[in-house]
Formats: sequence, C-alpha cells, structure tokens
Amino acid sequence: MNIKEIEQLLQNVKDGQTSISSAAETLRSFPYTDLGFAKIDHHREIRTGYPEIVYCSGKTIEQIKGIFSLMAVKEKNIMGTRATPEMFEAVKSIIPEAIYYDVAKIISIKKIQSTPPDSLIGILTAGTSDIPVAEEAAITAELLGNKTIRIYDAGVAGLHRLLDKLTEIRKCKVVVVVAGMEGALPSVVGGLVDKPVIAVPTSVGYGANFGGLSALLTMLNCCAAGVTVVNIDNGFGGGFSASIINNLS
Amino acid sequence: MNIKEIEQLLQNVKDGQTSISSAAETLRSFPYTDLGFAKIDHHREIRTGYPEIVYCSGKTIEQIKGIFSLMAVKEKNIMGTRATPEMFEAVKSIIPEAIYYDVAKIISIKKIQSTPPDSLIGILTAGTSDIPVAEEAAITAELLGNKTIRIYDAGVAGLHRLLDKLTEIRKCKVVVVVAGMEGALPSVVGGLVDKPVIAVPTSVGYGANFGGLSALLTMLNCCAAGVTVVNIDNGFGGGFSASIINNLS
Amino acid sequence: MNIKEIEQLLQNVKDGQTSISSAAETLRSFPYTDLGFAKIDHHREIRTGYPEIVYCSGKTIEQIKGIFSLMAVKEKNIMGTRATPEMFEAVKSIIPEAIYYDVAKIISIKKIQSTPPDSLIGILTAGTSDIPVAEEAAITAELLGNKTIRIYDAGVAGLHRLLDKLTEIRKCKVVVVVAGMEGALPSVVGGLVDKPVIAVPTSVGYGANFGGLSALLTMLNCCAAGVTVVNIDNGFGGGFSASIINNLS
Amino acid sequence: MNIKEIEQLLQNVKDGQTSISSAAETLRSFPYTDLGFAKIDHHREIRTGYPEIVYCSGKTIEQIKGIFSLMAVKEKNIMGTRATPEMFEAVKSIIPEAIYYDVAKIISIKKIQSTPPDSLIGILTAGTSDIPVAEEAAITAELLGNKTIRIYDAGVAGLHRLLDKLTEIRKCKVVVVVAGMEGALPSVVGGLVDKPVIAVPTSVGYGANFGGLSALLTMLNCCAAGVTVVNIDNGFGGGFSASIINNLS
Amino acid sequence: MNIKEIEQLLQNVKDGQTSISSAAETLRSFPYTDLGFAKIDHHREIRTGYPEIVYCSGKTIEQIKGIFSLMAVKEKNIMGTRATPEMFEAVKSIIPEAIYYDVAKIISIKKIQSTPPDSLIGILTAGTSDIPVAEEAAITAELLGNKTIRIYDAGVAGLHRLLDKLTEIRKCKVVVVVAGMEGALPSVVGGLVDKPVIAVPTSVGYGANFGGLSALLTMLNCCAAGVTVVNIDNGFGGGFSASIINNLS
Amino acid sequence: MNIKEIEQLLQNVKDGQTSISSAAETLRSFPYTDLGFAKIDHHREIRTGYPEIVYCSGKTIEQIKGIFSLMAVKEKNIMGTRATPEMFEAVKSIIPEAIYYDVAKIISIKKIQSTPPDSLIGILTAGTSDIPVAEEAAITAELLGNKTIRIYDAGVAGLHRLLDKLTEIRKCKVVVVVAGMEGALPSVVGGLVDKPVIAVPTSVGYGANFGGLSALLTMLNCCAAGVTVVNIDNGFGGGFSASIINNLS
Amino acid sequence: MNIKEIEQLLQNVKDGQTSISSAAETLRSFPYTDLGFAKIDHHREIRTGYPEIVYCSGKTIEQIKGIFSLMAVKEKNIMGTRATPEMFEAVKSIIPEAIYYDVAKIISIKKIQSTPPDSLIGILTAGTSDIPVAEEAAITAELLGNKTIRIYDAGVAGLHRLLDKLTEIRKCKVVVVVAGMEGALPSVVGGLVDKPVIAVPTSVGYGANFGGLSALLTMLNCCAAGVTVVNIDNGFGGGFSASIINNLS
Amino acid sequence: MNIKEIEQLLQNVKDGQTSISSAAETLRSFPYTDLGFAKIDHHREIRTGYPEIVYCSGKTIEQIKGIFSLMAVKEKNIMGTRATPEMFEAVKSIIPEAIYYDVAKIISIKKIQSTPPDSLIGILTAGTSDIPVAEEAAITAELLGNKTIRIYDAGVAGLHRLLDKLTEIRKCKVVVVVAGMEGALPSVVGGLVDKPVIAVPTSVGYGANFGGLSALLTMLNCCAAGVTVVNIDNGFGGGFSASIINNLS
Repeated sequence: MNIKEIEQLLQNVKDGQTSISSAAETLRSFPYTDLGFAKIDHHREIRTGYPEIVYCSGKTIEQIKGIFSLMAVKEKNIMGTRATPEMFEAVKSIIPEAIYYDVAKIISIKKIQSTPPDSLIGILTAGTSDIPVAEEAAITAELLGNKTIRIYDAGVAGLHRLLDKLTEIRKCKVVVVVAGMEGALPSVVGGLVDKPVIAVPTSVGYGANFGGLSALLTMLNCCAAGVTVVNIDNGFGGGFSASIINNLS
Repeated sequence: MNIKEIEQLLQNVKDGQTSISSAAETLRSFPYTDLGFAKIDHHREIRTGYPEIVYCSGKTIEQIKGIFSLMAVKEKNIMGTRATPEMFEAVKSIIPEAIYYDVAKIISIKKIQSTPPDSLIGILTAGTSDIPVAEEAAITAELLGNKTIRIYDAGVAGLHRLLDKLTEIRKCKVVVVVAGMEGALPSVVGGLVDKPVIAVPTSVGYGANFGGLSALLTMLNCCAAGVTVVNIDNGFGGGFSASIINNLS
Repeated sequence: MNIKEIEQLLQNVKDGQTSISSAAETLRSFPYTDLGFAKIDHHREIRTGYPEIVYCSGKTIEQIKGIFSLMAVKEKNIMGTRATPEMFEAVKSIIPEAIYYDVAKIISIKKIQSTPPDSLIGILTAGTSDIPVAEEAAITAELLGNKTIRIYDAGVAGLHRLLDKLTEIRKCKVVVVVAGMEGALPSVVGGLVDKPVIAVPTSVGYGANFGGLSALLTMLNCCAAGVTVVNIDNGFGGGFSASIINNLS
Repeated sequence: MNIKEIEQLLQNVKDGQTSISSAAETLRSFPYTDLGFAKIDHHREIRTGYPEIVYCSGKTIEQIKGIFSLMAVKEKNIMGTRATPEMFEAVKSIIPEAIYYDVAKIISIKKIQSTPPDSLIGILTAGTSDIPVAEEAAITAELLGNKTIRIYDAGVAGLHRLLDKLTEIRKCKVVVVVAGMEGALPSVVGGLVDKPVIAVPTSVGYGANFGGLSALLTMLNCCAAGVTVVNIDNGFGGGFSASIINNLS
Repeated sequence: MNIKEIEQLLQNVKDGQTSISSAAETLRSFPYTDLGFAKIDHHREIRTGYPEIVYCSGKTIEQIKGIFSLMAVKEKNIMGTRATPEMFEAVKSIIPEAIYYDVAKIISIKKIQSTPPDSLIGILTAGTSDIPVAEEAAITAELLGNKTIRIYDAGVAGLHRLLDKLTEIRKCKVVVVVAGMEGALPSVVGGLVDKPVIAVPTSVGYGANFGGLSALLTMLNCCAAGVTVVNIDNGFGGGFSASIINNLS
Repeated sequence: MNIKEIEQLLQNVKDGQTSISSAAETLRSFPYTDLGFAKIDHHREIRTGYPEIVYCSGKTIEQIKGIFSLMAVKEKNIMGTRATPEMFEAVKSIIPEAIYYDVAKIISIKKIQSTPPDSLIGILTAGTSDIPVAEEAAITAELLGNKTIRIYDAGVAGLHRLLDKLTEIRKCKVVVVVAGMEGALPSVVGGLVDKPVIAVPTSVGYGANFGGLSALLTMLNCCAAGVTVVNIDNGFGGGFSASIINNLS
Repeated sequence: MNIKEIEQLLQNVKDGQTSISSAAETLRSFPYTDLGFAKIDHHREIRTGYPEIVYCSGKTIEQIKGIFSLMAVKEKNIMGTRATPEMFEAVKSIIPEAIYYDVAKIISIKKIQSTPPDSLIGILTAGTSDIPVAEEAAITAELLGNKTIRIYDAGVAGLHRLLDKLTEIRKCKVVVVVAGMEGALPSVVGGLVDKPVIAVPTSVGYGANFGGLSALLTMLNCCAAGVTVVNIDNGFGGGFSASIINNLS
Repeated sequence: MNIKEIEQLLQNVKDGQTSISSAAETLRSFPYTDLGFAKIDHHREIRTGYPEIVYCSGKTIEQIKGIFSLMAVKEKNIMGTRATPEMFEAVKSIIPEAIYYDVAKIISIKKIQSTPPDSLIGILTAGTSDIPVAEEAAITAELLGNKTIRIYDAGVAGLHRLLDKLTEIRKCKVVVVVAGMEGALPSVVGGLVDKPVIAVPTSVGYGANFGGLSALLTMLNCCAAGVTVVNIDNGFGGGFSASIINNLS
C-alpha cells in the first residue's frame, strides 16, 4: 500500500465514500499485509488443502491435544510431524478422522482435497535404514498436495537399481535424496539428473558418522552442482522444500 | 534405448536397412546414453549458452591455460570460478575476449547469447562483507542465463531495507540468501516468502563463528520450512541451484 | 579495613575500651571481609528474601535431604534447581512447606517475603519446546524477588505475536530470550529493543543442532549489539543474571 | 497505534481537522513505528552522542571511505571497529577530525558531547596479551558515553592485584572481564562481586585453546551466577552490553 | 564387450545365426556387464562360498525375515552383521540351519563349503573389551573363507604377550589390529611386521576418547607405514578388507 | 650384541676365561633388561602390597569372575576399577574377603599390608557432584599404599573453605584436583601451592560442557605452571599418578 | 629363557655338549628375533632397492643435509618426502645424483635397481587439484619398486572416464583412490572392483570440508566393503600400503 | 594465624610488649600471608635461583623491554618463553648478559647460581620435528635448576634407540615425553618405567592430527597408568612440572 493509495483512501473517507470503520479496518491490517504475513495466509487459502503443521516432538500429550483441538475447528488440513503412537492415540480420541503414518511418524487430518500438480517429486534412499526419514519426506510432500515416486535402497551397492529407474527419475521435477553413512548418493544423482536435488543426510550408521555429521559434510561438499542440503534426519524439510519447488509455475 | 528400439535396430540390420558398422556405433555408445551423460550434454546444447565450468582454485597457471585453450576451440561459453587476477591475465593472453568479474572472482568467455527466462532470481546478503560470495552467486546465475536482482546489506540491523523490498523479493521465483556471522537472515526471509530459499553461509565473522560453522548450523536448523543450504562460501552452488529451479517449467 | 582502622582498634584494646575477645573476633573475620565473602553475605541479608541455591542434579536423594535440612534451620529462603519429583518428595517429607515447580524443576522454600522492584523481566521463547528452560529462568527470577512477564512461542513462525507484544516487551528492564534449533530469536529481539538481552540457547532440535551447539553459536555470533549468552539450557543462569541487572539502581 | 487512534485520526480527516497529506504521512510511517525501528532511532537521538557504528573488517578501503563520507554529513558521532591503520588514513584524508585508537583498532569521529552517567564500567583482563580486546571494550564503552576503570593483568598469577582493587571493582555498576587461555577469571570475579559480569573470551593462548574455544567454554560453564558471555575476542560486544546496562535507570 | 564382439553379433543376426530376440537380450544387458556388476557377481560365483551380506542394524524384525527368506532360495551362503538375538530367533524360525555368533553378533547360513587359502589372517586386540569388535572381524573373515589366528589382550600393558607371539603373527599374510582407548597398538604392530596392517578403532574407553575418536585419530596419524584404517567399531570392514587382501594371488 | 660377540663370549666360557655365572649375567640382562619388563615386575614384588589392577567396565560378569579367581591364587593385592555392584557380588561369591567401595566403584582384595610413606596426597573437588571421581582417586591412592586427605566441595563458591584448609593442603606432597563444569579449581590451587597438581576433569555439568570437554580444555590451558591433566572422569589415573609421585624418594 | 636355562646352555657349551655356533644361534635370536627389529632390517636388505625414508617437513635445511649425508655412505636408496625445492637444492649440493619430483615433493637417491613385481598399482584422483597427493602416492609406490598406472580427474563429473578405464583398473592388484571435497570416489570404485582400495582423503575444497575432514569421514563411512583409509593428504601412506600389498605373494 | 595467636598479639599490645604500629603491620599483612602469596614468594627466595617467568608471545617489543627492565633491577633470575629473536635483541640492548636459546625460543638472564638436585629429568622426543618443544622443556628445567638428559628421535620407528637407553631413562626421577602425530610414545614409555611421565603433545603432523588434537587425545586416553598430560606444544609446562616433581624431597 503506497502513499498514493493511502491518500485516495483518506479522500474517500473525507468524501463519505468509505465509512470510518471500514477504512480503519483496512488501515489496521496493512502493516501485517505489508509484512507479508496476511499475504502468505491468503496465498495458502487459495492453494486449498495446504495444512497447518505441528512439530510434535518435545511437546506433552496435553499440549498436543490442546493444539490439535484448537486447530480442528477451522476448515483446514492439519499435519503433525515427529509424533509418537501415544500422541496419535490422544489426537484420535478427540478427532476420530485423524490418520497415522507410523513409519513417517506423521499425524494427518484431512478436511479439504487439493488437486496436485501433474509433475512428480522423486524420493530416493541409499539404504533400507533410511526409509523412515524418506517416508517423512514422502508423506509430507503428499499431504502438501504432490504426487511422489519412491525409489528405495538404491545406494552404491544397488546402483544398478538407480540406473534402471533413471528414466523414471528424470521425469520428476525435483528429487529428494535421503542417505546416511557416507552420504554419497546425492553426488551420484546430482551428476545424472538436471533437476534440483535436495539432499537429506540421516543419522544412520555408526562410529565416525557422528550422528549424521559424516553424511551432512559429504552432501555440503558435493561436487555435483544443483544439490542443496537440509538438516540431518529432516525428512519434513526435504519434502516441504520439494513441494515449494514442485508448485512453482 | 528400450528393448523395442533395440529389436527394431536389429531388424533393420537383418533387413539391410542399416549397415553393421552404423548399428555397432549406435550400440557401442548407448550404455553412456542410457547412463545419461550424453543426454545431459545434449540437453545442455539445446539450452544454448550454458557454459562449461572450471573450478580454478588449486590449479596452476599452466593448468588453467591448458584447460581454457582446450575448451576455447568449441563453440561454447566458459566460466571459471575462484579465479585469481593472475589466472585471468593468463587466460586473457590467449583468449582476448575473456572477461573478469573481480568481486565474484569469475572468468567468463561468452560465445553464444541465450534468452533468459522472464522470472527472477533474488540475491540477498545480510552484510556488506558477504558481497563477494553473493556476487559469485549472482554472476553465476547470470552467466547461466538468468535475470537477477541484488538486495545487499539487509540483515537484522537493516531489516527495514528487507521489508521495503519485500514486494520486489516476492516477484522472484527463487531467492538466494547469503549471510555470515549468526546467519539468521534465511530464517527471516523463509518466514516471509513462499518461494524456495537457498541459504549460503559465509565465513564472515570471527571467534566462535569457526570459519562459517556458526552460520551453517543456523541455516541447517532453520525453523522456516522451504530453506535448503549449500556449503560455506559456496556462492557458485547457490547461483547454480537457483538457476536450475528458475529454469523449471 | 585499612591500616588506620586497625591502629584505632589496637588503641582501643590498649585503652581497655574494647575487650581482647571482641577485637580478636573482629580481626579474625577481616581477611574474609576484605575478600568480600562476608560483604556479599551481608549484602544478601539486606536484600531480604534472597535464597540459598542448591544445584540438585547429580546429587543423591540422601545428599539432597542433608543439604536442605541443614539449610532449613536458618531463616532464609532456599531454592533447589534441576530437582526431580523424587528429590522434591524427599525434601517435602522433612520440610512440609516446600513447593515444587514441575516444569521448571525447581524446589522452593520461602520463609521471608521480599518487595520486588517495580521494573519487569521479560521471558521469551521461540517455541513451546523451549518452555521448560524458560520456566526455570522465570521461576528463578521470581524467587529472587522480581516481577516477570512471559511471552512464549514467539519465534520466526510466530513473529507477529512478538511484534504484537513489542510495547509490552519494551517496558521490561531486561529481557531473557530462550531459543533452540537455529536460535535466531535473540538477534531479532536485540534489533528491536534497547535493553540488555540475555540469550539462553536450548538443546531443543535434532540433527545438526548438536545438543544446542547450533543455537549457542548463533547467539554468540549475534550481530545485534547488547546480547550476551549463557550456557545451553541454563535457564537458571539467565534468570539470575536478569535479576542482578533488574536490581541495579 | 491502536484501532481507536486510527479511527480518531480518520474522524479528524473527515472533520477537516487534519489534512490528508498530514494524515497520510502519519499512517505511512506507522508500520515501522510499530515495528520499533523509528522508536529506536528516536530514542537514540535523545540520548545525544550515541554513535553510528561501522564494522570495518572485511570491507575494502573504498567501501570504508564511502560509508564514512555518507555518515559524516549527519550531526552524529561515528565509530568504526576492527579498523586497520590504512582504513584510518583513508578516513582521515576525508574527515580530518577522525581519531584512531590503535590498540583498540577503533576509528572515532565525535561531533556531539554527551554527559556520561556517574556509574562506572570496570574492564578487567587476565593477562597483558588480552589488552587489545579489553581496549576495544573500554574505548567502545567510553565512546558510547560511559566512564570506565581499567584493571589489567589480574589473572590467577596476579590474583592479589585483583584483591587489592576489589573495593574499586565493587564500585562499578557492571564489570567486563576479558580472558584467554583457560578463561577462569570471570568465575573468580563473579564469585566476588554482586554485579553483572560480562565475560569476553579471547583467542590468546596456543594448542588446546583452539582459537579461544577453551576460554569460551570455561565462561559458559561458569559456576558463579551472574556471568554472561559474548563471542571470542568481541570486545566491542562486551563494551556495548555493559553500556546498555550502565545506562539503565 | 568391445566393438569387435558387437559387430560379430550383428553379423550373426544378419546371417540368421542368432535370433533377434536372443541378440536383443544380450545387448540389453551389456551396459551392466560393462559396468562390472555382472562381472563381480560372476567372479563371486567362481569363488564358491562367498556369502551375501545383510547389515541388520536399524532394520525391523519383519524386514530381516523378508530379506533372509528371499535370499535363502538361492544356493548361496548368507551372513547378517550387527544382528540382535531377537533377529536371529526370527531368522532361525524360518531357516533352521542358521547359526548365531553372539559375541560377533553375526547370523550365518552356510550352504556351500569353500576351500580357504593357506595363508592366515591375524586378528589382534589391545584389550578384552575390544573382543566383540575383533570377533566381528574374525567371524567375517572366516565366513568369507579364510583361516584366522586370534591374539587378544596384547596391548601396551601386555606387550610381552605380543612379542611372545611375534613369530606367529609374522606368518600371517595380513593383520587386523583392534584397539580402543589410545589406540596405539597398530603403531607398534606396524613397526614390527612387514605385512599390511588394518587398524580398527573401537569406542571402548571413556572421557576424551569421544566414542572412539581418540583411537581413530591415533591410527590415522600412525607413523608406522603400512597401516590403513576403517571406521570405529567396524570389525566387519576390517575382516572383509583382510579377506580381499588374503585372497590376492 | 652381535653374533660375533656372542660366539666370543661362548668361546671364553668354553676356554674357562669367563665364568658361567658371569656370562649368564651378561646374557640374562641383554634381552629383558633392555626391555625392562622383568625389572618392573621385580620392582613391584619388592614394593609389597602393590595390587594387580583390573579395569572392569565393559567386561562380562563371567570374564570378571574368571580374571579375579585366576589372580586370587597369587599372594597379591587386587583392585578392580569401574566395577558395578553386580560385579562385586560375583567376585564376593568366590572371594569372600573382597571389599566394595560403592562411591568409588572399586573392588579391593587385600592380602598384604604395606607401610605407606609419611607424606600425604591431597584430594580436592570443586563440587559435591565430583565426589565419585574423587573417591576413585582417593581409594586408588590408598589401595596403592598412600595416606590421603580429602577436601571436597571447595570450588569458587566455597573458595573460603579452600583457603581455610590451605595450610593442610600445603602439607601434601602432591595434590589431585577434581572439577567439572568450568574446571577452574586447578588453576586456583596451582597458583596457591608449590606442589605437583594433577587435574582430573569430570563430566559433571550440562550443555556446553560437552561431556567434560569444557573442564578438560580449561585445565590443559591452565596458566598456573605445575598442573598436569588426566582423562575426563579418570579418578584412577589421578590417584595412580599421585601415588607414583608420592613414592619418589 | 631364565637364568637357569642360560647357565645350563653355557654349561653344555663348556662341556662340549652343544657347539658354539648352535648355542650362539639360540642366544642370538632370543632378544631381537623376539622383537623382530633385526628380521625387518634383514628382510629389507634382501628386497634390494627398498629405500630409507626421511620425512623432511618441519626439519631445518641443516638437519636435512646432515641426515642425507649420513645415509648416503650406505649402499642404499634414499627417499625424502614433503621436501621443499630448497631442501632438494641443499641435498643436491652434497649428493649430485639426487632427483626431485616437484609435484610429489619427493627427493630420491637411487643406488640400487630393483625388479618390480608384474602386478600393477592403480592411482586414481577425483579432481585435478588432488594430483599432488596422488603423485606423492605414485612416486612413493614406484620408488618402492612397483609399476603404477595413473587415472586422474575421474570424479563424479568425469565418471565416464572412470568407466572407460574400468578394464584397466581391474587389472591392478590394489587401487589407491585420492579425493577431496565430498570424497565419494572410493565408494564408487569400491563398488566396481574386487580389489583392495586404499582411500586417501585430501584437504582440497573449502568451507565445510574442514581441511579434509569431510572427505575423511565419507571414506571411513564408506558402504562399499574392502575400502581402508589413511590420513588426510597422506599420499605417501597410500603408496606405501599399496606397495606392501602389491609385494605379497 | 589462628585465633589463639591473634589474642596473644592483642594481649601483648595491651601489656605494652608490642607497639601498636608493629602489631598493625603484622595484622595488615596476614590476609595475604594466609592466602599464601607471600609464602610462595618466601619459599621461592629460599630456593635461590628460581627465575621470574615472562610469557613473551603476543606482547609488543615495547612491552617486553618494559617488563624485563623492571625485573632486572631485582637480584633474581629471569626467563622469557616463546620469545622471538627480535624480542631477544631488544632485551639484550638493555641487559647485555641476556642469553638466547634459539631452538627453545627462551631468553634467560642469570644472576644467581643454584645447586641442582642430583636426580635427573629425562626429556624424550618421538621425532626430530618435536625437538623445539622438547628444548623448551629441557631449557626450562635447566633454568629452574635441574640436570637433564635428552633422548631425541626415539619414536616407534626408532624404538630400539629407546630400549638402548632404557637404563639411562630409568635413572631419571621424572620423564618428559614429547610427541606429535599419533603421540603413542608416552604409552610405551609409561609401560616401561615406574616413574612419573609427563606427556607433551605437539602440533607436529598434518591432516587428521588437527593441530595436535590427535596426539593430545592419545595421551589423555593412555592405558599406561602414571602418565599425565599438558597442553599441546607446551614444553614449558612439561619442564616446569617435571622440575616441581624433581625438587620434591
């Protein structure tokens, strides 16, 4: 809202074309509009089905119930990450339509259906132990209204499986690559596809992987351009970023 | 090359429509085609103007000259990152049209003009000391055929400058945020815009920033979803990833 | 006690105005007085209600009981930090008026009421998972005789809540900001208020937050001047330092 | 500016008591007022003599000159930290009244005199090698309009010097303690004085001090309550925070 | 498959000696042959008894059962590392001939007997607490078809035991040295024998051994040439590498 | 001693030029004397009462029983460190005279009484939580045949207690100082006494003490000369080193 | 061998029951045989041409000259690693036949020719910046009497070059893989070849490669079995270990 | 000075046996006496020849000159550590009898000769590159009035040299062992001698020695009891601690 628009509004108030209460309302909200908070919300309303997100870890069962019941009155989708089965049981007891993805540890409450874009998000893992993080990414992407394809256990030892699916991977608009241990898979994928690659290091491994540090550093030092990285075990972040890219037009 | 195409080729050989030597040549090269290396190159040729990239740091002047003169025979753009003025002088002595971006430390040889997409890449920095890394990102993005807007020195102390330019930033398809010290800017930007944010930590700072580790960890732990991270001081990686996203259709 | 005062005392002994035992007592204590230990205690006695503090973690139930019963004979307030419910039960069994703050994990025994200064200490958190540490800070500040206001869950995602309460925050004489994950909130608060900001990093988060290291480094590298930092999860230290500042005249 | 005030302003416009241009101006500025940026600036103007601060490190001589000449047109004090002698010469060539504190590496341009508060800021160092960082803190505090006392080289080996000056130290409203190597001095000072202690770790030392990490960790783990910490070698931050506390009323 | 072989195949198709479908099949698979995957497998088939390896840690009981039952249909040996007793019980319930090495935490299913090379692999440990890792190495080497000798608890304190067995150790073709704490044993062994030494750091120890980091760094900085290192606690990797070397002719 | 010299010596024996006992003495001392193993053992036997030491942690109950029953046949004292109550029960079931120090977690079997030197070993702690490590040091020193004095909880907050006991501390021949958190006590003690100070960092603390790293680094960077350091929580090492020094004549 | 046995042996010599040569042999072998030093030396003399090795870094020019002139009197090959051109000039001034490998920074003095084994050592690098480390490995291997093949710049971006040379690589008996940045190449090579792979991490890279830590951790966490690791930039260690393996029969 | 002594003194004042001024003087000084500072000084005066010590690193030439000229008026020995040749030249220009040990980087001014104890301090190094640190230890020990023996370059590769000198080493009362790289030498020495071993890690090495961290951790985790550790490259600390132990009676 620029100075011209403000003057016009004031002129309208002076002329009686706009009521004081209506103008006051417009003005009161503009700082936040300008700051973008309202805009983001507005944007999100248009993209129907975009969920509210709750990070459940470290919250008590009571806090979880409180937050979900507060949110459930709105006509919005809700998504809870890092949720334990106990948290889910508590949510389900007050919101029966709640669904639990146990590998991804995500609670979902779906009230509005969205139409996903045609383009695909690929979710790859190096090993089977990386699957829980990958599922967090995949379910996140799907709940945010995207189509995904999963290609799991395609690390160095199973590189031929990766190559077998290369055509399929190349169809994706963005690829999330989940890997622990040495975390070399994103380098390889980044060298083979010409699409944004989001690397998710996992804490899978032992010894000098230092809780995922090894995979994290590998991915940050990745020679293949086009690879960006999120936090260790942050499947949600990988899925969310992929969704933002997939929804670009 | 799928099984159908192979059978058709063999049928053509049997029918005499294709000579053995021609078919052999086609077949010999297909593993690599299938692996995607050729495809990538092919793809890159179509997107005219996409440069060959040389990482200059750690190479001798002689190696630099050798690599550039080898590349210069092709009708391709070339781009050398982390290049010193001495390296540039050596390249210029053999390729007079070479240009040097001294803040970004990039050598560019442009033979083919490309038509950039209409969408914009935003390049932000928290402080003025982050500008060299930001310029590496910006010049990279431009040499890869993108339009950019630069908003520098918009960190916490100059947050109003960020807010002043928010409308402009929101027009960008993807935003690269470069920050050293505490590296908090991507969190703020990620909370204000609904676009992919690529965070580039810099080694700017002292003491417990440990060569950029502080900013890197901040960005990896960023609460604002939609933020992904590249290596410390890796302006090139930030610009390259932004370009890949900006060129998605 | 300077040389003049000592000579005067000795003169008084010689003159019979002061008894030997009384003078000996005065002299015996003066090294410590000079060292300041007595002075501190004296000062604390004046500021009625200032509690004795026990760091309970790592002590056995028996040690806890012993320490509290020893202290309880004095007419002083007592405060035990990092206390488990079991420790509290043990203390309560011998000192029935003991109170337990279960979120803050603090045991309090209040014998003397103090008059708090009019000025306020603000306690902010970035997320709900940071509340236990913030409560340790808030209860500490209150037991040390201060008024507090709590503003919780005001991180990047809820920045408007922070801005909504800015007037309230600006009324505080000192602000304690508690944040985990990327720990960026103190930077933002430090840029908005002109008061001392004490940043308390928490171990909330996962992956590359490395047990709070991420938030700690962010806060230490904070660009906004006026921000100082205490140990990870050290709500007590934050509340205590805030109290010292709040009681400055 | 709440909804009541906005409605009153609009009523005044409607009634002709306030001109449209005047009201528009009031309204245009309120988001930032609300955000507090203007307020801070306003506040700073009242506190006459408060300088603009420039972090010189990592900037080119040209950037330094540009920033200082831009600032010099305002009637404000200016202060440049981490400035090399070369930077100072460049500034002095355009602003002759510029002064250089070579140990503190600070450039100062003083246009307005302020009246310092009566209370004192104490600046202590453990060793003589810590003096440059301490001087940065002391000069910063002085340029921000405070009186200081310096007590240098009072570490463990010179503990008696500290005890000799204890009365003097206790007169200070806030104490900045600068120490490298094992960084134990703030613990000792914190145990002896009942004032806020701001600990500044330095990178002085060798081997397992790891560039100041040793002193930093010592200070963060300080048992003596009332001690807060700033970044390694961050004398400016120590002096600035002390100034904010010293100016509290 | 070189260009000659391809041309011959095409000639055979043209001549009708090879059917199109047969030739297509041959050609379809050659990229992988060329990549070496098939070759490796072929090689492994020749070296009869070489097991398939499953990394069990982090997999669910259900996943373990699925993987083992899938593998068990082939006439191959199988070996599962980092397997818990529960995992073994699950495997045994479907494959009764499964054997469990409880110290090494390895499940083995042996269908084919191999003839081990005459040369020996030596497995040494510094202490008794390193034995589980050493057993993982020893059992791995044996299941891969090697003869081993074990010399345990031969660290600095028991150096004479090492010297007593030196003749025996020198008979080995390759030596695996397992050590935690300071990890100095490989340096000593590397100085005494003229054979490849594979050092396996363990997480045995406390305090500043930081989960095996101490032993790892010692081994990497080992002055004695001829020592190479695997990951902390990676007995499998040590045994596997030793086996590859022992089978070289 | 080369083959020639040996043959000459043997020839001399044969010729009667050298007596058998003289030649035997020459030969006997050249391998083991040179290595020193025998000497140490011999030395230990002379210093009656010196125990055999077993590091119990990480060993199974069966291994513990085996080791102790093997040792118990000799007329020697035995000492087991890091022993759990379960381990003690197992040892006691076969060696009834075994004693358990539960705070120090040490099992002792005493068969021979030694006469301790008159000089004292001082054991100090900064806090009460450091007592288990200090007890490990104290009991170790006592079982190795030394007299000790314990001064616990004498950290910064209780510095006057340290000063009260300074005369007593100065009587010790060597002082072991145990401290967690910031670990500053050895610096203070090292500045006050003119005796060897052995600093034992403990893992007591939280947050940025990183499992004792903070105290360890403080002690290594200790300005006070005469302070040496052992591993984190290594009370045994502190007590053992103190004993060696205390037994020097 | 105790004093009794020695005396008996001497008695037998005196009595003529044992010949001097037989007794000498028994005696000669018991100290050093047991320790092995002599054997190693002996072994090295047999394997003619095996050089003496000098680690030049950190030594003064005078020390270097002294060491080389001392060694040069023996009929042995000499090899100096990490040698600067200045060191070489100093050596050449006294030993004219000295040769300098400037990329590998190795000084060689060859007096004896050896016959290399027929088998090959492969030396691979990921990038051109890794070549100095690779040359150190290659020249070391050659000076130790081995044949090598070099395949440089075969990282992810040039993976096809690796695949092109796969047949050649497979002919090698052992492969040294040198890589900086993310260090993923050994994982890929380890998955493709069935030979011992020695991974050499380099400090090539920037930012979060932390002086080679990134590549080191990647290699230690390598999923492909058969890969062992040496110190960062330790080309010598890689070449030496490869030589030991290559000379196994 | 206990309460009895104070009362006696007061009685003497009352009785006129002691003058007020004399008693006042006695009393004034007792806190510091009690704190031990004077005592230490007194003690040091008795032990004639004990030098004042100046840590020169990080001080300016002017500061160095000032400190030395101030000290030189007293009849005391002076010793400056970490001194550059430039510092020495400056000192020599004002104190001509100053001596410089260039390898140890120590300035010495000797005014008083002391009689060293008969017992020896052994100084060992693993390699020649460790000599500067060892010389700092040796010269320190000698200037503090001790006899030393040096055994350099006795690491793993030269272990026989160590064994050759074992008798000599065993004559020492205390041994300082200096080692970089893997730092294993103190473990070996600690296993061979029954004397206090002070381990000094050095920053000699490269790659994963991380500036001496590797050797430091090795020494801290040393299995051989009786080994204590000082800071990386802290030859002075090693020599000083050895001197304190060597002077124990």
